[in-house]
Amino acid sequence: MQVKDKNYKTIWLEDKLVKIIDQRYLPHKFVIEEIKTPLEMAFAIKEMHLRGAGLIGAAAGYGVYLSGLVHFKDNLDINKYKDLIKKDVGIIKNTRPTAVNLEYALNRQLELIDEVNNSRKLLDKLKEEAVRIAEEDETSCESIGRNGVEVIRKISESKNRRVVNVLTHCNAGWLAFVDYGTATSPIYQAQKEGIDVHVWVDETRPRNQGARLTAWELGQQGIKHTIIADNVGGYLMQKGLVDLVIVGSDRTTYTGDVANKIGTYLKALAAYDNKVPFYVALPSSTFDWKIKDGAKDIPIEEREGEEVKYIQGLSDGEIKKVLLTPEDSEAKNFGFDVTPAKYITGLITEKGICRANESSIKKLIGKNK
Amino acid sequence: MQVKDKNYKTIWLEDKLVKIIDQRYLPHKFVIEEIKTPLEMAFAIKEMHLRGAGLIGAAAGYGVYLSGLVHFKDNLDINKYKDLIKKDVGIIKNTRPTAVNLEYALNRQLELIDEVNNSRKLLDKLKEEAVRIAEEDETSCESIGRNGVEVIRKISESKNRRVVNVLTHCNAGWLAFVDYGTATSPIYQAQKEGIDVHVWVDETRPRNQGARLTAWELGQQGIKHTIIADNVGGYLMQKGLVDLVIVGSDRTTYTGDVANKIGTYLKALAAYDNKVPFYVALPSSTFDWKIKDGAKDIPIEEREGEEVKYIQGLSDGEIKKVLLTPEDSEAKNFGFDVTPAKYITGLITEKGICRANESSIKKLIGKNK
Repeated sequence: MQVKDKNYKTIWLEDKLVKIIDQRYLPHKFVIEEIKTPLEMAFAIKEMHLRGAGLIGAAAGYGVYLSGLVHFKDNLDINKYKDLIKKDVGIIKNTRPTAVNLEYALNRQLELIDEVNNSRKLLDKLKEEAVRIAEEDETSCESIGRNGVEVIRKISESKNRRVVNVLTHCNAGWLAFVDYGTATSPIYQAQKEGIDVHVWVDETRPRNQGARLTAWELGQQGIKHTIIADNVGGYLMQKGLVDLVIVGSDRTTYTGDVANKIGTYLKALAAYDNKVPFYVALPSSTFDWKIKDGAKDIPIEEREGEEVKYIQGLSDGEIKKVLLTPEDSEAKNFGFDVTPAKYITGLITEKGICRANESSIKKLIGKNK
Repeated sequence: MQVKDKNYKTIWLEDKLVKIIDQRYLPHKFVIEEIKTPLEMAFAIKEMHLRGAGLIGAAAGYGVYLSGLVHFKDNLDINKYKDLIKKDVGIIKNTRPTAVNLEYALNRQLELIDEVNNSRKLLDKLKEEAVRIAEEDETSCESIGRNGVEVIRKISESKNRRVVNVLTHCNAGWLAFVDYGTATSPIYQAQKEGIDVHVWVDETRPRNQGARLTAWELGQQGIKHTIIADNVGGYLMQKGLVDLVIVGSDRTTYTGDVANKIGTYLKALAAYDNKVPFYVALPSSTFDWKIKDGAKDIPIEEREGEEVKYIQGLSDGEIKKVLLTPEDSEAKNFGFDVTPAKYITGLITEKGICRANESSIKKLIGKNK
């Protein structure tokens, strides 16, 4: 997508290193980071230089390739080589527990590690697979846009082409994937088709992915948007100012429960109470085919309380961190919550739209598990 | 209540001036502001040097007394004197549209202005009434504590005296009233009675009254508490980590709908979905005896979008304001939302606890309107 009129992806391979947009400095500074080792990649994932369901998956795939690169020696025993890479896979896996795409990408690389018994060939395969995971993410997101725009178009027509107000939480934009995004992809597609769209952007405390990232990418793309505190969505829905909610997902059970950024569940409740359609956009790689009860069994990441107590922003041209709370008050920081399937109108995937229940999901995705 | 082991109220009269705790600098600095004129008082209310349902009422009462003071001249015509004061009443009234206590206090002063036809006597009466409004607020809040503690005590007993987890939104603490607070008053009473209580403090964006004020006052009082982003409450309730929600109210219809800080409605929905008791604590002065449908008819204050885009905090010992969003993104800032009566378990008032419906409210408060 566009950054100052130039086209970017969030992650790409350049020779033997991986480049990413370091999202910690957005919207104030646009910084490209070079990542050369699997540990640097693990750190970048953990410390959220990059984040978002699909992008974490792509980064994990590339991280395993970097592991293959740094451990490669011509006369190294293949099993030793595999062990070294698997150790790095373990480190990358432990960075973020909730996002299923991380596991999904690592499992694809682990399968290769099991199959291929020549170091040089394995290294080539890890590279190919990493690139393929990223490309699949991109094409999935593009398809999500084409499928999801139907929902927006129908609302636009029912409103006689007056502006369609979409509310989104966190950043499930192109910054959360390799390109296009999930929740934003139907919005970008609507823009291409000349549909009038306006986005209510939830700030998304404590990391402010909405106020920092979604607002920034929508702005770069020329999409009308308004930032609101996370507290505001319910009021807007009561007043008829939201036509549609679209959010992303970090893990969706095969029964349709959705783990997404903390606070998503509250917006789903408000949408349900006010009969506002609530959609979740996700590539099918985000499905978890093992977990049945999301609220009970999806692991929820707990991060440092400091992320709640301090916030970063721009002051006199410099990025500064300020303390928001009494210094000795404690803070807790849970990263995700689970929205039960019953509050979800539909799931927008690259294969089409389905209801949030086991039979619709399995029928659409073609899983018989 | 306690500030560094000294006893304070939020507002008091000292000779011919009013002193307030300037809440803009909390928790980082404890500043007392002197207010000498009605316009200074209007400004302090509008710019939130002080805020909170009861405190706004008390401040309005004192503001009218200050108006009487600054316009007093021995040989001024009584009608001219009254007109000057009424003009200031109008200015004070326009500062914050949602809080009903503002209107309530001003109406009490306006009644005096209508009744009393001697300047000196009127000035004395305005002073007496202002003091009385503040004292009534204080005693009401104390009674709310004694009535509300019953709810906490019962939960404590049903949990075999294990810790009772209370969630609160915004600051309906003593900083929002003259003393004790409403939502916090039962908590302070529980502490006195040796009941083990822990408070989940919603940060309360965009003005962070929870993270700045509630956390600070609970800390000064030695009450266990944990600050959370506004997004977190639903998750905590799903996980059984909240026994009870208590919030305040800025205006409650006689049918039981509650206007309170934006985001309250979302917590009420989550409490309802997870069968967590949801109580609203308020002095009876907060009832609006004219409005029937809260969501439709309570005026909702819209404040500057800048309050969402910038935030103030402590950096290297200095209070700094930082920009959180892209500079050219718009932000909207609605101050309150309305929680429909059906989501409210009960109203805790100085006269006792009642259900959130017309007949229970009128029966308890003794209104026949």
